[in-house]
Amino acid sequence: MLDDELARKIAGSVSGARLVASLRTLAAIGGRPDGGVARETLTDADLQARRHLVELARTRGWKVSVDPCANLFFRREGTRPELPPVLSGSHIDSQPAGGWLDGVYGVMAGIEVLLALDDAGIATEHSIEICAWTNEEGSRFAPGAMGSSTFVKPSVWEDLRGVRDAAGIPFEDACNRALADLDPAVVRGDWQRPIAAYIEAHIEQGPVLEAARVPLGVVTGIQGVRWFTVDVHGVAGHAGTVPRALRADAMQVAINKAQAVLDLATEDDRIRLTVGRWIAQPNSINTIAGEVRFTIDLRHPEEATLERLETKLRALLESPDSPCRIEVGRTLCQPPTQFDSVIVETIARACNRTGAGSQRLISGAFHDAMHLARHCPSAMLFVPSREGISHNPREDTDPVDLHLGAQALAIALTELAGPVY
Amino acid sequence: MLDDELARKIAGSVSGARLVASLRTLAAIGGRPDGGVARETLTDADLQARRHLVELARTRGWKVSVDPCANLFFRREGTRPELPPVLSGSHIDSQPAGGWLDGVYGVMAGIEVLLALDDAGIATEHSIEICAWTNEEGSRFAPGAMGSSTFVKPSVWEDLRGVRDAAGIPFEDACNRALADLDPAVVRGDWQRPIAAYIEAHIEQGPVLEAARVPLGVVTGIQGVRWFTVDVHGVAGHAGTVPRALRADAMQVAINKAQAVLDLATEDDRIRLTVGRWIAQPNSINTIAGEVRFTIDLRHPEEATLERLETKLRALLESPDSPCRIEVGRTLCQPPTQFDSVIVETIARACNRTGAGSQRLISGAFHDAMHLARHCPSAMLFVPSREGISHNPREDTDPVDLHLGAQALAIALTELAGPVY
Repeated sequence: MLDDELARKIAGSVSGARLVASLRTLAAIGGRPDGGVARETLTDADLQARRHLVELARTRGWKVSVDPCANLFFRREGTRPELPPVLSGSHIDSQPAGGWLDGVYGVMAGIEVLLALDDAGIATEHSIEICAWTNEEGSRFAPGAMGSSTFVKPSVWEDLRGVRDAAGIPFEDACNRALADLDPAVVRGDWQRPIAAYIEAHIEQGPVLEAARVPLGVVTGIQGVRWFTVDVHGVAGHAGTVPRALRADAMQVAINKAQAVLDLATEDDRIRLTVGRWIAQPNSINTIAGEVRFTIDLRHPEEATLERLETKLRALLESPDSPCRIEVGRTLCQPPTQFDSVIVETIARACNRTGAGSQRLISGAFHDAMHLARHCPSAMLFVPSREGISHNPREDTDPVDLHLGAQALAIALTELAGPVY
Repeated sequence: MLDDELARKIAGSVSGARLVASLRTLAAIGGRPDGGVARETLTDADLQARRHLVELARTRGWKVSVDPCANLFFRREGTRPELPPVLSGSHIDSQPAGGWLDGVYGVMAGIEVLLALDDAGIATEHSIEICAWTNEEGSRFAPGAMGSSTFVKPSVWEDLRGVRDAAGIPFEDACNRALADLDPAVVRGDWQRPIAAYIEAHIEQGPVLEAARVPLGVVTGIQGVRWFTVDVHGVAGHAGTVPRALRADAMQVAINKAQAVLDLATEDDRIRLTVGRWIAQPNSINTIAGEVRFTIDLRHPEEATLERLETKLRALLESPDSPCRIEVGRTLCQPPTQFDSVIVETIARACNRTGAGSQRLISGAFHDAMHLARHCPSAMLFVPSREGISHNPREDTDPVDLHLGAQALAIALTELAGPVY
């Protein structure tokens, strides 16, 4: 554990103004007229942002390396370079109409930590590396988190390299273009390597911290998620002529079943259950629907609860009490992530050291940390999202909170890296 | 009333084989590869079908006239031509993917009646006219029933003449093209004129007669209908991050409200209540819906019931118990039609005279007769639809039932027109 004096010194060296300025600089690269950011992975804007970060590292003397998936690493060397590094970061790619903080906050807060340690003249035993994972968003190449998942399990590269974007460009070609675009001085690293610990700072992308009026969130895990499609097959017919008793109305059955599914969420506050997509055929005001497809997004921190809810959900959807035939398909099954308790406690102590309030919470969204947690002790640190809004040009966070988050991150990373007194 | 001998003679002169053959001839004009019919109003196929009917009338010596809305009339002259004619018919335009009977059956059954009376050498006091109303379907120019509504109330022409199809062609231009296409011998008639009585034969387009195993339906009226759009305004959000209590989930609220609306239909078997259209935004599996619009099609034979149900429906939709703002708009309000009891009884007697079973029922669909009923004593005669299917290439009716319907129509029209012994 850090002593109080060193913790105060580290926190005092973190500059909120510098952090916000560097976030604004990044936001201008791929900036949209509406104030948002369009910097999809490995596009020209993303490559420009990468060059900007590499140049910043060069002026500070940090080592820069890149792996075959174009994940970028900025390394502040420790006094014992043979030890595995402490890693922090997130991603700098955005949604097509994204905000200025999603992902970038974690990268720039990490870089602010390196700047603060430089300014304060604090050495650490472990090197500290800040990473920018390739393609977290998944909007250009699906699925997301390709960079972090490949880092953790290089064998998935064979499945991912051939994925094409809407223009037909393979992911591998886009990665190679990014690698060729980088300063030749950047070290071409290999795939996976040992990591001592990983902390990812991120905006919450939800309303919990704001509603609780707490500036810092200690993230103990990531919810598991299961996705389902429900197809209701009825018989289309004339809205005026077919009596109720003779109908196989796919819309009526879908509404009734969806209501029953949504009612499952009332038994536990931690259940997130969303019917997000609804497609009816022929979708005409005076025709009984012949077909309806709707989707279910089900999340919970506990695998056993997800399993139990899936059983209930299938039972009520597939019960033979309906005039329509119903098919249920599962399209995603991602188990919950439990973060490492040592890293969680380190982050919790660091938050306390800032003097600001914090609370523990579960991440509702996926993050690169979900993959890193399978490779090394990992956890996350959240700052609030204004109105809970993300993936939206209106995404925002109070600069005071952005500053507090970077202070807590600096204290936690220094503790994990072992300060040299 | 007709004596039994004459009724038998008339029924015996109606040829089921000739009727089906003439329906098949029409079905080939605009025939689709899937066996259906694509003969939207005033298209080349519709014009070809009109020329075919005019040629048939010419060979029989029936007078043909047309009004400015391109409604076609085929007149078998009575012994007292100064009396207003007894009118029968329907429409020959189809949906883009329609069947071979919707509308055409009423026109060709009417023509079969004229042929049968010719063959049997039966004269009537009133002239009998068979009409083909322009644009009943409304699929090319909306709304439907433009021909019959203009005939009954010529002042609506000013509202309808400028309506354009998807290609930008005004309805009036399409009508004028049809008029110019006709044989110059066709009499250019004026708008509305006195009519002694109107009977429209039609396929049921619903499953009631088939389910009851009854070949003939005596239609006593047409349901009233009210259309509503329901807009649910919520707040879009991340499916994983926003807790249930903080959501304004437009999909969840829409499902809940739609279920409550549908429950209103359980109180009375005659209520037809359909949620046919459902549009969600952004309609993404992992995003809480920000907006949902759904539609309600509500029908009942009694205006008082429609009024009461609308009040209930608005109360439950507009109750302030929801996290979303809800707007209800009424886009159509068509009161119920009660057919003339004398015409209804005439049709019922004619059905009995065929020796086949019949039952009384309310029409669930709109028909040209809805407009004619405001102009002259009117009613309708239904034959069953196989599986209740219509507006579909699979639309079909047993030829035996098609024949029975034409026999009943012949007996009823002759009685109304006054046979000359």
